[in-house]
Amino acid sequence: MPTHNEYAAWLALCRVKGLGCVSFKRLVVQFADPRDVFAASRSALEQVEDLGAEAIDGIVNFQEWTEIDEEIGRIRDAGITLVCYSAASYPARLRTIADPPPLLYVKGELKSVDDNAVAVVGSRSASDYGRRVAHDLARGLARAGFTVVSGMARGIDGMAHEAALNAGGRTIAVLGSGVERTYPPEHGKLYQRISAQGALVSELPIGTRPMAFNFPARNRLISGMSLGVVVVEATEKSGSLITASLAVEQGREVFAVPGEIGSSRSRGAHRLIRQGAKLVETVDDILEEIAPQLLARRGAAKATPLALPQNSSAEARKIFSLLQDASLQVDEVIERSGLAAPRVLQILLELELQGYVRQLPGKRYAAENTH
Amino acid sequence: MPTHNEYAAWLALCRVKGLGCVSFKRLVVQFADPRDVFAASRSALEQVEDLGAEAIDGIVNFQEWTEIDEEIGRIRDAGITLVCYSAASYPARLRTIADPPPLLYVKGELKSVDDNAVAVVGSRSASDYGRRVAHDLARGLARAGFTVVSGMARGIDGMAHEAALNAGGRTIAVLGSGVERTYPPEHGKLYQRISAQGALVSELPIGTRPMAFNFPARNRLISGMSLGVVVVEATEKSGSLITASLAVEQGREVFAVPGEIGSSRSRGAHRLIRQGAKLVETVDDILEEIAPQLLARRGAAKATPLALPQNSSAEARKIFSLLQDASLQVDEVIERSGLAAPRVLQILLELELQGYVRQLPGKRYAAENTH
Repeated sequence: MPTHNEYAAWLALCRVKGLGCVSFKRLVVQFADPRDVFAASRSALEQVEDLGAEAIDGIVNFQEWTEIDEEIGRIRDAGITLVCYSAASYPARLRTIADPPPLLYVKGELKSVDDNAVAVVGSRSASDYGRRVAHDLARGLARAGFTVVSGMARGIDGMAHEAALNAGGRTIAVLGSGVERTYPPEHGKLYQRISAQGALVSELPIGTRPMAFNFPARNRLISGMSLGVVVVEATEKSGSLITASLAVEQGREVFAVPGEIGSSRSRGAHRLIRQGAKLVETVDDILEEIAPQLLARRGAAKATPLALPQNSSAEARKIFSLLQDASLQVDEVIERSGLAAPRVLQILLELELQGYVRQLPGKRYAAENTH
Repeated sequence: MPTHNEYAAWLALCRVKGLGCVSFKRLVVQFADPRDVFAASRSALEQVEDLGAEAIDGIVNFQEWTEIDEEIGRIRDAGITLVCYSAASYPARLRTIADPPPLLYVKGELKSVDDNAVAVVGSRSASDYGRRVAHDLARGLARAGFTVVSGMARGIDGMAHEAALNAGGRTIAVLGSGVERTYPPEHGKLYQRISAQGALVSELPIGTRPMAFNFPARNRLISGMSLGVVVVEATEKSGSLITASLAVEQGREVFAVPGEIGSSRSRGAHRLIRQGAKLVETVDDILEEIAPQLLARRGAAKATPLALPQNSSAEARKIFSLLQDASLQVDEVIERSGLAAPRVLQILLELELQGYVRQLPGKRYAAENTH
């Protein structure tokens, strides 16, 4: 394998046939840097759990580095950022789902405040009532400091993004096409506003057209990066019901807004409520349900940074201070600290056991803010 | 105590101070005939569980027989029927609640088909939506053979009665006043139709004016005689929520119809749904939930009457045939069978243990239709 940056290796892995999100995640955890995957021997790859022969062949025989370089050029030219699974800006909640996308194409910017996200989704053919409700809930969520996640579709989705933007809040649109595509076309203005005041996100390579069969997979990202999913209006065959059931699988809260019986647009929401979704009338109904998770986070954010005990070694303090601003890979810690590798590993382990640092995927370490 | 008919004794017991529905029920079960209560000695009454001194004094010193006779005259003149707790026409489900009224004043007629009753209740100040929903559900229930129970109030209640009547079904109005009173006054026509095609029912003495403080107690009868209660529209302070919580205590199903959020008239129903009430969109949603109880009843109605085994004694067969058409009190069984009392009691006990007859309150017995 020629010398490439990490992103080239990520993109290359994404092109390997027979390599699903779950195996991809295993590779990332095991090899930390995807470049190491391409440097690995066949026998090393064969030891990765559940990694199929097709995927191993694809890795060992990978040749398309020129295309990858061209792709990186196109991504750069389109103003798109690649955010890989092990990056600090990768959405924290999304990392916890069973099949997180290894790589996100991002237009705009993902921020750590987006960890407090709530999805608002629903019918493309929304009623005036549905649009009004989507607007009011999204505005209320934005005012309460939540990032509003949705799918930028017509109807409820578009209204949710717009209301969050108008309230001065953040919003994330998860697309079922390449992230550079504006779909539906009439949402051109909305696309621009979201990229300036939030982020558009896709796991699909640029150039991918919006195809219906990509939408269910997209929906798992909408629920995956959110604390909960609010279904505003949904027919019985709505994709929003798929999002809701993915949310349940992912352990996310599901909320549904009732409407008049006899309106087919409310039938999906009513079915969700019968199945146990929380009936929502106001933003407070949502906050009440997700409050436990929020309080924990807010408490963490307010706490003063942890200080090591007075009797800590100078080496431990050095390493701990290196990890204050950003997470670092083990190799970076070794390099920047100027200490011997075994000593660094020993100190990191001690700090982790004492609760001062925590390990992230990809052999990265970060300082804990609070116990 | 002078010689009076049974109803006079019932009415007299109702006038005894300190005698609540629960103690009343105990007296009825213990003495079978209320005349025996007035014939009982003070020491016999003192042995009745939880019967207070005030109630015992009231029974022993009861003097108002003249007033009772006058009351009976007024009841007769008003075309009102008295249905006491131990009567066959007393609503079977109502008998099972913790505090069944000892005596019902009935205008019209209670029938055994009314055992399959569903209550439809809601706001007096209903919206067009609420009225439409009440109409459609009540009509559907009536068409499916259910008696629609409600409180004859303005709004949802009135609409529910009317729709059931228009569908050619039966309906029961439970009043919070004397049963001869038409309240609200504009429901005069409705009152006439209900008395002809169903029943108006009250536990309150004739002449009692409609007072708000009587309505919650009234509501326990609405739920008590029904398989379930459907709340169509209800504000957060609606009496319908009281009916719903009484229904829960009584083990009845609670159903609620959602509406648009932001409508204060739907807030009560939404709260009920959050608390576990079944969300209702169609009559089928109701039928589905109460089907298990219905199937049992329908099966019972269709079954051929039980026959005693061939080797049964002639005496047992005689007694069993006496009980085929109607329930009888022990004394009546003794009298009509011409058998000695101890033998009758022994046979009844055997038949009961074998599942051929069952005991009813007031020492009455009835033949079982099916095992």
